Order: sequence, then C-alpha cells, then structure tokens
Amino acid sequence: MAANNTVTLYDLQLASGATISPFVWATKLAIAHKGLDMEIVPGGFTGIEERTGGKTQRLPAIVDDGEWILDSWTIAEYLDEKYPDRPTLIGDPGIRPSAQMNEAWLWQTAVGPWMTCYLVAYRDRSVPEDHEYVTATRETMFGGRKLEDIIVGREDRLPRISADLELMRGVLRENKWFGGDSPNYADHRMLACFLWLASVCDTPALAEDDPLRDWIDRGFDLYGGIGRHPGLSNIFGLKQRAGDPDLFNRNPMANGLTSRNTGVKSTAGETARMKGQKAGA
Amino acid sequence: MAANNTVTLYDLQLASGATISPFVWATKLAIAHKGLDMEIVPGGFTGIEERTGGKTQRLPAIVDDGEWILDSWTIAEYLDEKYPDRPTLIGDPGIRPSAQMNEAWLWQTAVGPWMTCYLVAYRDRSVPEDHEYVTATRETMFGGRKLEDIIVGREDRLPRISADLELMRGVLRENKWFGGDSPNYADHRMLACFLWLASVCDTPALAEDDPLRDWIDRGFDLYGGIGRHPGLSNIFGLKQRAGDPDLFNRNPMANGLTSRNTGVKSTAGETARMKGQKAGA
Repeated sequence: MAANNTVTLYDLQLASGATISPFVWATKLAIAHKGLDMEIVPGGFTGIEERTGGKTQRLPAIVDDGEWILDSWTIAEYLDEKYPDRPTLIGDPGIRPSAQMNEAWLWQTAVGPWMTCYLVAYRDRSVPEDHEYVTATRETMFGGRKLEDIIVGREDRLPRISADLELMRGVLRENKWFGGDSPNYADHRMLACFLWLASVCDTPALAEDDPLRDWIDRGFDLYGGIGRHPGLSNIFGLKQRAGDPDLFNRNPMANGLTSRNTGVKSTAGETARMKGQKAGA
Repeated sequence: MAANNTVTLYDLQLASGATISPFVWATKLAIAHKGLDMEIVPGGFTGIEERTGGKTQRLPAIVDDGEWILDSWTIAEYLDEKYPDRPTLIGDPGIRPSAQMNEAWLWQTAVGPWMTCYLVAYRDRSVPEDHEYVTATRETMFGGRKLEDIIVGREDRLPRISADLELMRGVLRENKWFGGDSPNYADHRMLACFLWLASVCDTPALAEDDPLRDWIDRGFDLYGGIGRHPGLSNIFGLKQRAGDPDLFNRNPMANGLTSRNTGVKSTAGETARMKGQKAGA
C-alpha cells in the first residue's frame, strides 16, 4: 500500500503550474481514479534526467513505495495490478487495443493539427528555462520552420479540425463515457488530449455548443475538478465564419451504425427514403 | 438452452450463398464464438418482411427457443446474457463505445469508399430477384447516378483507401486481436467489414503483403473457417502503380503512441533526433 495513500508524480509543467503533457494528464487522472493522492515533483522539460536521478528522459514517472514506474500505459497497468480492489482503469484485455486506435485517431485528426495552431503559446507558456529547448525541438519537428510561421493561417484550419471530430461526437451521443456508465482509462487518454489543448490554446478550438462539451466538462470536473487548473484556457468559443465548414454536424444521421433495429417501425422511414419515396409513403 | 445447441439465423445472401451483409457476418461470427450451431434461413433483400412474418425489414434476425432477437448488437448482448458460461463477446461496458468508434472510422475510411468501387459486382452477385431493388436503392443512395458510372476511376481510388488504413495497422502491429490475446465482438465487427469486402470485390483492394493480412487470415479461419465460403473473392493482390501512394507504410514510426518508455536507453535515439543530432551523438 502506498505510504499515506500517496504516490509521487514527476509532473511536466507550464510556468502556471498546469500540466502540459497529455501523457502526464492521463496519469494524473488514473492516479485520482484509483483514489490515491499525489505528491507532485514540479518542473518542465529541462533537467528531467537529472531530476529523476537518471531514471528517464520522459514523463510521467511515478514512485510508489520506493518503486519507480515509467510510461503512462505501464503506470495504469501497474496501478490496476497493485490496487485491484480500487476502481478499475483497464477492465478487460480488449480495452487497450481499441482505446489506442481511438487515441491514435484523435492525435491524427486533432492533436497534431492543433499543434500547428498553438505552438507559439505552447512555447510562451512553458517555464522560462524551457523556451529555447521547446523552440529548437519543435522547429526541428516541423522541418525547420519558425514557430511564428507554422501557426499562420490557423483561423482557417481550426474550423476544419473541429468539423473532423464527428466520429467521436457520434460515440458520445450514445454513450455517457468511453467506459460505459462510468469513466475508464480510455476516457482518461482522450480527456488528456483536451486537457493538453486547454493548457496551450490561446484562442478557442471548439464551438460554445459543441456536443463534445458535455463529456469534456464532466471529464474536467472528475475527481474534485482535477482538470480545472487556473492555468488552463477555455477551449470553447470558436465562431463559425462565412465559408467555414459547420463546426459540428447539427443533423446527425438518424439511422447510423449505432441505431438499433427494433422492428419494422424503427426502419420504415429509412426504407422509404432508400426506395426514393417520402417517409410514410 | 437452445434446442439441439442451434439457433435459427435469417441470412442475407448473394446468389453464391455467401453472406453479403457485414451485420449478418458479425452475427454469424458471434453465434459461432458462443459455440452454437446455426440453422440458416436463406434469402436476399427481397421479401425479408414476408420471410420473417412481419418481424423485421432488416437482417440479421435470430430465433432462439422461440424468441426473436433483431439487430446485430442486440443479438450479441442477448447471447452474452443468455449464455454467460460460454466465451464472452462483450466483456466490459467499455468495449462497445470504443468498438463502435473504430467501426464508424472503418466505414468512413474504407467501407463507404469501397462501395463506390464495387457496386456493380454487389448488384451482379446478388440473387436475381434482388437486382432491380439493389440497383434502384443504391442509385438513390448515390444521388441518382448509375452504378456503372459510380465505379469509374476505382483504380485510382483503391490505392488511397488502402493507404488510409494505417491507424488499424498500427493497433494490429501491437495486438494480436482487438480483444487482446483472443478475439471478441470488436474483432467480429471489424472482420465483418472485410468479409463484406470479400463478398463483393471483383478486383483486389489490398496488397498481397498488407500487414492487415495476418489478422484478416486468422479472422476468416476462425470457428472452422467460417469466413472461407467459396463465393468470396480474394481481397489481396492490389498492385501499386507509378504515382500511387504507398499501399501501406513500410516504415512505421518507431516512437509512436504505443511505444513504451522503459528508461533512458529506450528514448535516447528519439531525443537525439528531436535535438537535430544524429542518433548516438
């Protein structure tokens, strides 16, 4: 058992003290989900290896009863194994593969594209000693372009990124959490991406009335409001301009993959449309 | 308990007797996974409502001990509830949301686009009494265009569809099944889309050496080779032409979302690249 019910978490922080890394955010949510307290070791990108006594170049890392555990997925698996009587993070061997595919989709669809919109704020909000490192590594990552040049045109990209999140909205229309009736580590992985977004967005990324908002708000409120750090920005408030794509689909298909056939009444309208008739005809 | 260990399945068939519907394929895999036998009621799109005594316009439908169950997801949930001591289909409330998101991604990325390539074969392979219905409903679905016109240019679309499946390849590089070490209903839903593909593809959709092939072959072989109906076509054999995108990524990123930080050695190469140094420098 963790001494005093507390594990040590090596954080990766902005100057505000808010967590910058989505992977550390996922671990924070996971630790809180298990009902454990956190002793936070603060710091930014600079000096991780020194801070952890040569244990790692990446965070999160936790220390529990003197044992070091690295890597956000490994930490979640460790917590389930060490504390099986507490709320489960990954309840079935089928959770991880599907969750990883959904998370990879979210990175490809939104996190990567949002990065091209928020890199300047990402650097400016980092702790002062990280500025040079963040600038150099992210410029290398983006083919040597300057951060100020990479974000140019973001007002035209943000509406498209929002529109592209429809697959996720579809799931959350039908399900309260990715975990079903209560959140699991799949929710934590996805929420962590939006917590990352809130940590770097100096202009909103999603519409005020985005259907994702209900899940995001409930997720940020979890475990006593763990996602309500004052250093985070409001991610909602993007306005749709003339010529922008709809920021989200206001008329989702009634007969999608997740609709259920409960008999002739449930499909008669679709059948009529398929036959080119007006519904009810 | 099902009489004689058998449930009645209302199939949706092509003239060859192979199943055409991905939803019926998912149900066939689910019934076999539970170790139950199937009594197949044959037929195509024409006359479903008459065949089922007015119970439904859509298939699959099953009858088990006199009870009708409609809808592929409802059938899977019913089978788990009725036969809890047999292999589980959906083991955790978190399986369905993530599986539905992955399946919706597969429809958007591949099933829909493949439909525009194979609609003529889809019609021609259907049972004779379905030809008129399939032609009319699918032409309505595609804005009134003729099936023969819709498939034009498919040789240019097929390479792009294959290239776009990388998210799924990433998961299956790291996991044997979506269910983990053994298949679950998430595998059945995804496999059903490839079984549908095999039922309609009159020219290959994927490269001979596609990394998805291992999972697809193992999936088609499940439950005594349930996916090896002689009416199905070989989906592999697409050739990459000059100017085509790579049909799959031959050099997937070593440090992706699913890689694990096991200490400094596991990240040193990536760290060097981020700093613009040669690895090992």
